[in-house]
Amino acid sequence: MDNTYPSQLLERAVAEFSKLPGIGRKTALRLVLDVLRRSEDEVDSFTSAVSRVRKEVKYCRVCHNISDTDVCPICSDSHRDATTICVVENIRDVMAVENTQQYRGLYHVLGGIISPMDGIGPNDIEIDSLVERVAQGGVKEVILALSSTMEGDTTNFYISRKLAPYDVAVSVIARGISVGDELEYTDEVTLGRAILNRTTMTTKQ
Amino acid sequence: MDNTYPSQLLERAVAEFSKLPGIGRKTALRLVLDVLRRSEDEVDSFTSAVSRVRKEVKYCRVCHNISDTDVCPICSDSHRDATTICVVENIRDVMAVENTQQYRGLYHVLGGIISPMDGIGPNDIEIDSLVERVAQGGVKEVILALSSTMEGDTTNFYISRKLAPYDVAVSVIARGISVGDELEYTDEVTLGRAILNRTTMTTKQ
Repeated sequence: MDNTYPSQLLERAVAEFSKLPGIGRKTALRLVLDVLRRSEDEVDSFTSAVSRVRKEVKYCRVCHNISDTDVCPICSDSHRDATTICVVENIRDVMAVENTQQYRGLYHVLGGIISPMDGIGPNDIEIDSLVERVAQGGVKEVILALSSTMEGDTTNFYISRKLAPYDVAVSVIARGISVGDELEYTDEVTLGRAILNRTTMTTKQ
Repeated sequence: MDNTYPSQLLERAVAEFSKLPGIGRKTALRLVLDVLRRSEDEVDSFTSAVSRVRKEVKYCRVCHNISDTDVCPICSDSHRDATTICVVENIRDVMAVENTQQYRGLYHVLGGIISPMDGIGPNDIEIDSLVERVAQGGVKEVILALSSTMEGDTTNFYISRKLAPYDVAVSVIARGISVGDELEYTDEVTLGRAILNRTTMTTKQ
């Protein structure tokens, strides 16, 4: 450490801020100095929001998305298509899919992804509860929307095997070149898959 | 706003984090999700450190640097050279100068810089208290270590005029090309000043 902090209170606050992901000591110091410029009320409002979100936030008992209620607004929305479940890794992915405005079904948040390297096995994430939801019936399709990584593929494979005994379609979101991407800058694995998984062009769908 | 937050607690915490400088809503969400993964004790430790630094931190009554005590460790250190005062804009600059390990005198933290554009005049920053320190005697040199900007130059000029009646040397830190910089990439104003303010090379100092 190359910084001599003139105050232990300052040093402790900087240390706490720099525990946050992507925040180094220099940024942390900038944040703490900003805190010092605020009114006490503003700082109270910040700390209480942080404290409350940790202590009071609930997770939907159906889909495990973050929620202020026992069952989240998406799961309790009768206008949504309850026959389709989109499986995602975390709540940020729920928001990402919601932002597309292309999906009107329900979700299932795994809370992680199978990753033997990080010691995360199938039992550490919400796979059993997904199988249970499907077993209860009424679900026609499960869409696996996980990252296109080794861990994502492993998890996809594991879930599809677990769901095999049930009368449910299991699909995986399309992998291909991104909209707006130029072919020459696309990596060969993605381009190869995109060619294999080509779709028929029809003049009208 | 393009994000639909599944929880108001989450949304409020994200809003609070994104009030911090340089933190956008995406980063704020990442930070809040990290908070949710922590233990309650860890979150308490974070919020209490932030709250305490705002409520309990003091400012040295001599140099206005942040301090846990009435007079900061630098001002009360009898090994430091009390005849020299280095004037800086804020406490980060104190740390920056301390890190050079080239300076053994005392400091004076202005808490800002004269900036008519931002409505900051000479009376909004700690200039009077600097003049008072000098007036009390015992100070031989005041080193102005402000940013090399229009505002810094204005403040330097204002302070040097205020100190003119006293028997004290006023100096400004050297401006020139940075160590390691190549000439061809140095801007012409800096290079021009560096030529004007050239120093004599001696084989031994």
